[in-house]
Amino acid sequence: MNIARTFLTFSARRVLQSKCATCLAVQKCQVSTGSSCCQNDAKKLKIKRFTPRRAVLYIPGSDERKLQKIQILDVDCAVMDCEDGVAANRKVRDKHTITKQMDTIFFPYRVCGVRVNAVSSGLMEEDLRVIFQAQHLPQTIMVPKVNSVQELASITNNLQNALKDRTVQHKISLVLFVESALGLINLRDICERGVELSLRSNIYNVDGLVFGSDDFCADIGAKRSAEGSELLYARQKFVTIAKAFRLQAIDMVHIDYKDQVTLKEQSIKSAGMGFTGKQVIHPSQVPIVQEAFSPSEEHIDWAKGLIKAFEDHQTSGTGAFTYRGHMIDMPLLLQAKNVVQLAEAIHAVRRSL
Amino acid sequence: MNIARTFLTFSARRVLQSKCATCLAVQKCQVSTGSSCCQNDAKKLKIKRFTPRRAVLYIPGSDERKLQKIQILDVDCAVMDCEDGVAANRKVRDKHTITKQMDTIFFPYRVCGVRVNAVSSGLMEEDLRVIFQAQHLPQTIMVPKVNSVQELASITNNLQNALKDRTVQHKISLVLFVESALGLINLRDICERGVELSLRSNIYNVDGLVFGSDDFCADIGAKRSAEGSELLYARQKFVTIAKAFRLQAIDMVHIDYKDQVTLKEQSIKSAGMGFTGKQVIHPSQVPIVQEAFSPSEEHIDWAKGLIKAFEDHQTSGTGAFTYRGHMIDMPLLLQAKNVVQLAEAIHAVRRSL
Amino acid sequence: MNIARTFLTFSARRVLQSKCATCLAVQKCQVSTGSSCCQNDAKKLKIKRFTPRRAVLYIPGSDERKLQKIQILDVDCAVMDCEDGVAANRKVRDKHTITKQMDTIFFPYRVCGVRVNAVSSGLMEEDLRVIFQAQHLPQTIMVPKVNSVQELASITNNLQNALKDRTVQHKISLVLFVESALGLINLRDICERGVELSLRSNIYNVDGLVFGSDDFCADIGAKRSAEGSELLYARQKFVTIAKAFRLQAIDMVHIDYKDQVTLKEQSIKSAGMGFTGKQVIHPSQVPIVQEAFSPSEEHIDWAKGLIKAFEDHQTSGTGAFTYRGHMIDMPLLLQAKNVVQLAEAIHAVRRSL
Repeated sequence: MNIARTFLTFSARRVLQSKCATCLAVQKCQVSTGSSCCQNDAKKLKIKRFTPRRAVLYIPGSDERKLQKIQILDVDCAVMDCEDGVAANRKVRDKHTITKQMDTIFFPYRVCGVRVNAVSSGLMEEDLRVIFQAQHLPQTIMVPKVNSVQELASITNNLQNALKDRTVQHKISLVLFVESALGLINLRDICERGVELSLRSNIYNVDGLVFGSDDFCADIGAKRSAEGSELLYARQKFVTIAKAFRLQAIDMVHIDYKDQVTLKEQSIKSAGMGFTGKQVIHPSQVPIVQEAFSPSEEHIDWAKGLIKAFEDHQTSGTGAFTYRGHMIDMPLLLQAKNVVQLAEAIHAVRRSL
Repeated sequence: MNIARTFLTFSARRVLQSKCATCLAVQKCQVSTGSSCCQNDAKKLKIKRFTPRRAVLYIPGSDERKLQKIQILDVDCAVMDCEDGVAANRKVRDKHTITKQMDTIFFPYRVCGVRVNAVSSGLMEEDLRVIFQAQHLPQTIMVPKVNSVQELASITNNLQNALKDRTVQHKISLVLFVESALGLINLRDICERGVELSLRSNIYNVDGLVFGSDDFCADIGAKRSAEGSELLYARQKFVTIAKAFRLQAIDMVHIDYKDQVTLKEQSIKSAGMGFTGKQVIHPSQVPIVQEAFSPSEEHIDWAKGLIKAFEDHQTSGTGAFTYRGHMIDMPLLLQAKNVVQLAEAIHAVRRSL
Repeated sequence: MNIARTFLTFSARRVLQSKCATCLAVQKCQVSTGSSCCQNDAKKLKIKRFTPRRAVLYIPGSDERKLQKIQILDVDCAVMDCEDGVAANRKVRDKHTITKQMDTIFFPYRVCGVRVNAVSSGLMEEDLRVIFQAQHLPQTIMVPKVNSVQELASITNNLQNALKDRTVQHKISLVLFVESALGLINLRDICERGVELSLRSNIYNVDGLVFGSDDFCADIGAKRSAEGSELLYARQKFVTIAKAFRLQAIDMVHIDYKDQVTLKEQSIKSAGMGFTGKQVIHPSQVPIVQEAFSPSEEHIDWAKGLIKAFEDHQTSGTGAFTYRGHMIDMPLLLQAKNVVQLAEAIHAVRRSL
């Protein structure tokens, strides 16, 4: 049992190669999977890196009125959309809107992103070139429709070219979209290579994945049902791979934004499956989603109590023990620690508002 | 967003390597995943290749009376079975029946196939030798129990040997069966290699996959339940891989052929999961299954309207828009285009009857 | 159709390479997947190897009173736990308890095992060193939290070091735990390598896999629900891979040991999914679980009748036939043969009590 391996651990790729999670020394540590021989540094790295993205809200890059409104929204991550939300023949004009908005509206905002067009569209390089003319760089770049490892090379090139005349103070977070059968069957390789490239890069860090359900359904010829079993395999495979590489797992949009009852049910179930957040297309969806992906007070309470009880029993040496009627072991302890860490990260964001 | 990548696209293997989907030139196209630098040729290739196999009906190769009956059936794909439906000690005799039937009954039929015995049975080579003595070649060869990439080499050899004295006018379609845990975990490799071999071959084309549920259940020791959750993982993994390689995905048989209510429910759900067709064992199952895998008039209507609305909005440049109360984006457009293409293919078949 | 490939077949790894399942000669057999050119030897090997592990009961290695009790229990596999059930600061003392118990209590017991600490804990080598000081070697070593192929090398080294001064009469069975997202995405490689190493090893044999649900949930950040859909993908992928490599698939624990109704439902569903057994934490869970993973009398009856009917029809050459209202083919025959073999193995164990 290796308590150090929580969902905040820096890099699963190093885990795969049994290196120290911080200094990358292969043979330095006795403990072979994912723990660190540089405990303190690792801790700093982890805490610095964790950014809640419970709700990810898209705003069409062409709609100045809607972009203005984000200043009054309490959303973890607001994304200016240069892709699906924008008609193809307006795309060039809209990018200049975005550049302007980046400096006046978005930068003060705590987590902002831009969704550029996919590598396959041929528009990504130009998107990035225009966006990076803004004085302030976006915190996150969202890349739709990543289908193969090869596209990561294009993404890296496009970013390097667009940033070649600038100094990058903080690495830009990359969030990659899985939206096709091909993307899903290549996802493990994409993550492995993405985390590897992030370690070498001075300019970006692959930080999360988004599951694009509608594109995925169209790609496999599936029809969306109310209960959604047609997506169960894809979403659970997606979560498993994301978590193996310690990446955020952001779930599908609920497109009928007036139906808040289903949104709430869907969000609670999604959080229960291990997703860390959800895409939204309307401001009214934000509070419902953010609440569902936050640990409840009772859960935080339970978690803190369990951690305390565990520490007490370790000291007294009485072996297995029960807490609130359940036999407690390492997995439950791990889950409790995750809950407390997430609660602290959300609390830190609230304080910074 | 790459609209050209629909489920009819010629070859996903080329997609994997970012080649032009038609001419295979690696660096010729700007657009890197699955689109074509030879749009017109690609279009011809796609249309030529699409063969509906909504219902795949097996008829025991030993039963002349049942084989005669297929002439009055309106089934997309009729298959003479040399495998499970035929007792082992009758197999040699039955193949000669099949050769005779091929020329008298099956050839006039629009899509006919023969299910030969599996590579592992040791009977496949002899099966093909006898079948190809018919004057008319079957359009499709169905190969059961494909478990590994290595078997593709045996299949290729067997086909080449059996056809060495003949001229092959039209490539024979191969449809491969997944019927074991091993076949399922090797499926991605099987498809990748199968599509690769098809490109090089003058005599065959891997065109579809069949999920053999009963063999699969026996192999993993599962019991079939009414709701079928024990097969959810296998069937959804199967669909995902088939679609990633742009292959047809043909679902399990409903063995209780008198129970048409369950058949209908099962077929509708199957189509909703992305399967393109379903195996049947009795003529009475055909119309129910073929209806379930056809798009409804309302759906075709919706699709055509959406495509029209999208084109209008592209012209006027108003960005995101709603259609019949839903926000429309590329995935929905894609799904609409798929529906229209399938409807046209089925309509073309009906006209040819 | 290859009737020889049942879930008792010796090694799927040989299947992968199309070798004879017994003598490993690559080109010797005509039949290429998983069948044997040494039928009689293979048969002996299979029968010798099959050990029912319907219920796997953990007893904390620190609790002598509970360890004493196993002598009156009718459980397929009793496991002394050196891992989660034992507080970290008591671990050294407990291992000596285990050594003592091994010789006085456990050895007479039919299938006993020891769960050591994971490779990543750094405690495994010491665990094995102490355990193997007992006069009698445990039949099974259970290794928790196997996350990568690399850990198999550590496990092999640890076992070899701990056994270097002893003669190993019977190979020790290894049972490996999947308890993380990383372990699950690496499971295929782990099994492939594990089976390969087993073939070369004189001291161990990878014999089964355990799914550790609570650790897995904590790892992916999922919450357990009553219906358990959050684990469906992981458990079905686990079963599929286990069965592809002909390994036992042992399901998650139901931690609320007072709730026997849910335990029974869960066990029946689990057996229906292809799991071969289930972990338990309380003696009262044993009979419920063992019954659920045993074939029913009706099922054995059905299976024997089907086999008889099949043989009769083969002789008379009447091709496809129905049995009790169902059309019978090879998959159903296979399932029938599996049922009879499992029933015989359980019966053999009962006789030996």
